[in-house]
Amino acid sequence: MGLIHEDRLFPADPTTRAIARRLYETVKDLPIVSPHGHTDPRWFAENEPFPDPARLFVIPDHYVTRMLYSQGVRLQELGIATRDGSPTETDPRRIWRRFAENYHLFRGTPSRMWLDHSFATLFGLDTRLSAETADLYYDTIADHLARDDYRPRALFERFKIEVIATTESPLDPLHWHGMIRASGWSGQVITAYRPDPVCDPDFAGFHDNVRQLGELTGCDTGSWSGYLEAHRRRRAFFKSFGATSTDHGHPTARTADLARADAEALHARVMAGAVSAQDAELYRAQCLTEMAGMSLEDGLVMQIHPGSWRNHNPLLFDRFGRDMGADIPSRTDYVGALKPLLDRYGNEPALTVIVFTLDETTYSRELAPLAGHYPALRIGPAWWFFDSPEGMKRYRDLVTETAGFYNTVGFNDDTRAFTSIPARHDVSRRVDCGYLAGLVASHRLDEDEAFVVARDLAYDLARKAYKLD
Amino acid sequence: MGLIHEDRLFPADPTTRAIARRLYETVKDLPIVSPHGHTDPRWFAENEPFPDPARLFVIPDHYVTRMLYSQGVRLQELGIATRDGSPTETDPRRIWRRFAENYHLFRGTPSRMWLDHSFATLFGLDTRLSAETADLYYDTIADHLARDDYRPRALFERFKIEVIATTESPLDPLHWHGMIRASGWSGQVITAYRPDPVCDPDFAGFHDNVRQLGELTGCDTGSWSGYLEAHRRRRAFFKSFGATSTDHGHPTARTADLARADAEALHARVMAGAVSAQDAELYRAQCLTEMAGMSLEDGLVMQIHPGSWRNHNPLLFDRFGRDMGADIPSRTDYVGALKPLLDRYGNEPALTVIVFTLDETTYSRELAPLAGHYPALRIGPAWWFFDSPEGMKRYRDLVTETAGFYNTVGFNDDTRAFTSIPARHDVSRRVDCGYLAGLVASHRLDEDEAFVVARDLAYDLARKAYKLD
Amino acid sequence: MGLIHEDRLFPADPTTRAIARRLYETVKDLPIVSPHGHTDPRWFAENEPFPDPARLFVIPDHYVTRMLYSQGVRLQELGIATRDGSPTETDPRRIWRRFAENYHLFRGTPSRMWLDHSFATLFGLDTRLSAETADLYYDTIADHLARDDYRPRALFERFKIEVIATTESPLDPLHWHGMIRASGWSGQVITAYRPDPVCDPDFAGFHDNVRQLGELTGCDTGSWSGYLEAHRRRRAFFKSFGATSTDHGHPTARTADLARADAEALHARVMAGAVSAQDAELYRAQCLTEMAGMSLEDGLVMQIHPGSWRNHNPLLFDRFGRDMGADIPSRTDYVGALKPLLDRYGNEPALTVIVFTLDETTYSRELAPLAGHYPALRIGPAWWFFDSPEGMKRYRDLVTETAGFYNTVGFNDDTRAFTSIPARHDVSRRVDCGYLAGLVASHRLDEDEAFVVARDLAYDLARKAYKLD
Repeated sequence: MGLIHEDRLFPADPTTRAIARRLYETVKDLPIVSPHGHTDPRWFAENEPFPDPARLFVIPDHYVTRMLYSQGVRLQELGIATRDGSPTETDPRRIWRRFAENYHLFRGTPSRMWLDHSFATLFGLDTRLSAETADLYYDTIADHLARDDYRPRALFERFKIEVIATTESPLDPLHWHGMIRASGWSGQVITAYRPDPVCDPDFAGFHDNVRQLGELTGCDTGSWSGYLEAHRRRRAFFKSFGATSTDHGHPTARTADLARADAEALHARVMAGAVSAQDAELYRAQCLTEMAGMSLEDGLVMQIHPGSWRNHNPLLFDRFGRDMGADIPSRTDYVGALKPLLDRYGNEPALTVIVFTLDETTYSRELAPLAGHYPALRIGPAWWFFDSPEGMKRYRDLVTETAGFYNTVGFNDDTRAFTSIPARHDVSRRVDCGYLAGLVASHRLDEDEAFVVARDLAYDLARKAYKLD
Repeated sequence: MGLIHEDRLFPADPTTRAIARRLYETVKDLPIVSPHGHTDPRWFAENEPFPDPARLFVIPDHYVTRMLYSQGVRLQELGIATRDGSPTETDPRRIWRRFAENYHLFRGTPSRMWLDHSFATLFGLDTRLSAETADLYYDTIADHLARDDYRPRALFERFKIEVIATTESPLDPLHWHGMIRASGWSGQVITAYRPDPVCDPDFAGFHDNVRQLGELTGCDTGSWSGYLEAHRRRRAFFKSFGATSTDHGHPTARTADLARADAEALHARVMAGAVSAQDAELYRAQCLTEMAGMSLEDGLVMQIHPGSWRNHNPLLFDRFGRDMGADIPSRTDYVGALKPLLDRYGNEPALTVIVFTLDETTYSRELAPLAGHYPALRIGPAWWFFDSPEGMKRYRDLVTETAGFYNTVGFNDDTRAFTSIPARHDVSRRVDCGYLAGLVASHRLDEDEAFVVARDLAYDLARKAYKLD
Repeated sequence: MGLIHEDRLFPADPTTRAIARRLYETVKDLPIVSPHGHTDPRWFAENEPFPDPARLFVIPDHYVTRMLYSQGVRLQELGIATRDGSPTETDPRRIWRRFAENYHLFRGTPSRMWLDHSFATLFGLDTRLSAETADLYYDTIADHLARDDYRPRALFERFKIEVIATTESPLDPLHWHGMIRASGWSGQVITAYRPDPVCDPDFAGFHDNVRQLGELTGCDTGSWSGYLEAHRRRRAFFKSFGATSTDHGHPTARTADLARADAEALHARVMAGAVSAQDAELYRAQCLTEMAGMSLEDGLVMQIHPGSWRNHNPLLFDRFGRDMGADIPSRTDYVGALKPLLDRYGNEPALTVIVFTLDETTYSRELAPLAGHYPALRIGPAWWFFDSPEGMKRYRDLVTETAGFYNTVGFNDDTRAFTSIPARHDVSRRVDCGYLAGLVASHRLDEDEAFVVARDLAYDLARKAYKLD
């Protein structure tokens, strides 16, 4: 039987499934275009082996650790480092066993699909992970990781990644990206400009970050004009490392379009020290509109990822820091929030603003109607918790009738879990082929068109929307 | 193959599809009852030929122009008239070609289904519209439009429209309706009372409109009692042209039930000139409750269409005016908003208030529970962006279990796109038959009952809810 | 044919249906665990026959009466008692006929499924209820109700109820529960602690209730510490009658974690008399966090049922009182609202807080992400209007991918309609088996695992989450 079935995720109805298979056959081997994600460029720069199964699959994957935590497993038992240095599990095999004996918790989740896909296709495993098979798994994976053809670059090539974007702070020297380029390796790893550390007054170290931004660029970031100029220079620097996009992870989608003098005054207040919640929100809002303006100048595609309440669990944050699975979606408004930016730049066909959501109610009510009207706006794929079979189906069902396919931008894996990348793209291709097969089976789309759209969704739209051509 | 398939929109599962076919067979030829829409009564009064394919299918259809606009086509290229008279495309064939070469944008949208249905059933076209077939389409359609049997009245009869309601302002003299009646033609074209121009202080020309309302009726609309009496007289006038309903298109569903003196004071403030946003909202809210009271008196069915943020794109509005595809849904509350009206009139079985929504989250959370309780309340069909196969399925899935079928009111095409009317009713009948077939196949409804309900949804409920009998 | 089909609610696709059947076969006869509901303990204490068909199926069932009311049937015609004693129908057969002749209104609703299930399995009826069969139904049911094997305890055993929880106020002496225990009957009927009457300042008679709470416990409920101590004592008393849970039905999910002095001052203000809306909300909020703390002490599982706008219809409330079908869901926030409680207790694996919702938008956006992270949090099953086939499907589709199965707690029938209990559990088992069959058919779950999960959802999770072992 094996861990993964060749018909997985296809609709059960035989007619529809047959169409889905035909469509999938033509897209399954297309190269992977990964225009947005969080892999570590250092992997590709140094090309060191991944250390062990626990450090590859458990410790860094907040999907995995959050589920285990929700069922009473302590993060220390999973080897998560504590901020105060208090003890944590260090034996990767013990961590792995703890994971394995709780593997039933992942039934019905996308994590289960991604993990099984990796286990089967990368490590040739064909019995289910469990307490009983934990050591077999551990040994098999560990053996493979020691091999040269399991180093990051080899996997990159095995995965047929045509291009992958990482995400860096404006303060990042892009050292690893430089090293990749200097190495002569042909793998295309590009960066993306993520200025939250200098755009969000609530970001840890914000004032220091803005000061550093000034130092890096030789601009007076104490003034609004110097601050904006510093952004322009870093964007140009990022472009020189292949960046075609920026990314903005704000608590809300709010934008603002202040008069110049008001923006200057706001900047001065924000720089002066303690920032009110209201000013912080307004500053982020103004930054988004400024970034849109710069995108119109320099051509970088703008991504907005709003609506995550970061670090919702203060106890966990104090003990372990960020990205511990305690980021919770919240209700998000777009229609009012994006209006200042859209009023200014929404009618520009030369600008691309890709908006994501963690509030699925906005697909049909807000995002599809907005993207189905404004030339500058596109809808990003189902994100984070919704990068899942049912999440993707809801996305297509809720978006397509109003926005069509061509106001969407293909798939983002958006992951730091490197081995899950082929699995995630495969899920997306299968679900989209299943969706298209449903349209064909109900005679809403001709089959010859479905082949075109299947390829668009799997490959062409991502290249085009992110200007990767 | 052809453009439309006889099994389109039916569920793929063979058992369920067979049931859907059987149900559909019994409703597909029922006459069309169109109790709410925006066709132009002048068409039926003058019975002039439709001018050309572009003016029939492209220029007036904001579903079509918004999608093209979202992908970078300028509205001038589509022949949309500018407000300042600056040049716009005038050659209908060039407009048609631009539409045709972008027809792939409509894949998966209801517009595609409606258009293909018209192309196939009205003009005998059987190859897909594209750049290549643009001229064939243009010539074929143009030839037909020149024929007497393609004039508005002939199409009305061909479509088997039993009754159609248009929508007019209280200031409308109903000239075209008078001409239709005077002509002796048997087609039943009735009006509906849409008092937004005199109920919404934010409506363009509001103060002038209220003044005109006074002149038309001989009432002193400067006073609250005179204003209300003017409504009563215009409603009676509309009834004399067959009206059985009113319609209210407000930004929110808010209602109010002010004490008489407070309402009078509000009216005085509103009439005095510059109206605050708060007063404007309160005035609209009070008007809704007054209209409900008048409906209880004169029997007109009341429709509320809230939740559209009109003219969200100011640049487009300045250049081209209203109804350019820039109306965006917004989050809408009903439970609190409707309470003042319901507190006053919700328990009246003799009153019918039909509520629509552009916020699908309210179907199961608010509208079905409200309509499943209040005798005066009914839920209108899936509206606007949701007048689509998936939109209709969600509607039934989310509404039926709490409100049943008999607190819904059948289908509204709600369109100004005349040729799409049979297509839209056909989509609705197919989707409803598919939904019912699903209930039968999963043994939640007996098949003999499904035949009754299919007819109710396609025909009887609309006649009954809108008092068309 | 009969009223109920053996394959009802299973997916139509033959492959998927066959899997669903196999799964269902293994869970259909499992005992019923009913950890939360509103049956009357007096039934089981006195074991008197149910009086007549109308008083069993119509008068007390607000699902039934609300639908009839929404279509113009007056509550007096259904035998609902008026508060002022004005006349109401008293002939149960006439009430039954009125219900029967309107039975078509329930097409497509869960009430129809529950009723048909009872009619068929309890009373052997096999033709549909209608005006024509009303008397046949009435006589058949009435005859059965007179039999000893249709008394409450006999039905309890026939239904294979392993344990059922009722819900009582802290002021309830638990007389009937005592009588059940004293009787020697083996049926396990336990209570649950529902302190709304003394936690919600807006509850009718609140001040009196708090005073009574003091008298019952010998605590000075005028002081905050005495008030809290009184809760502790009543909770212990409830535990002595088998309670394993508390339940909290607040208008919102808001929680608070005030400093001791602030809580004391709030209590003093609330006790002093007229309570502001703000204080009432804060008091409820603080109570929830206190209850969570006590649950950590005494082990009672905490349930929160927020988001119902009670008695939305004041006219009906004035005439007939509470629970007349006029409770309407409202938009509910959890991410911000629960934060104070979660900040304090969310990381405690020894605490179980089960949260319910009437706002389905929160399943994927808020509840699954929260429950998929916080060890103390679980998601209750689809509730009230959503205790329905489509409601349950949406629940699984929206919850599982983020929270898995093991952050859910099995099924609650949550009903006062005793005879509907087997029907409701059967619906839940069928829908869950259908859902699991879908995962198996699309190769997202192995069939051997599906058997385990089917049993978990039907039986084990409820016992475990509610600490019934």
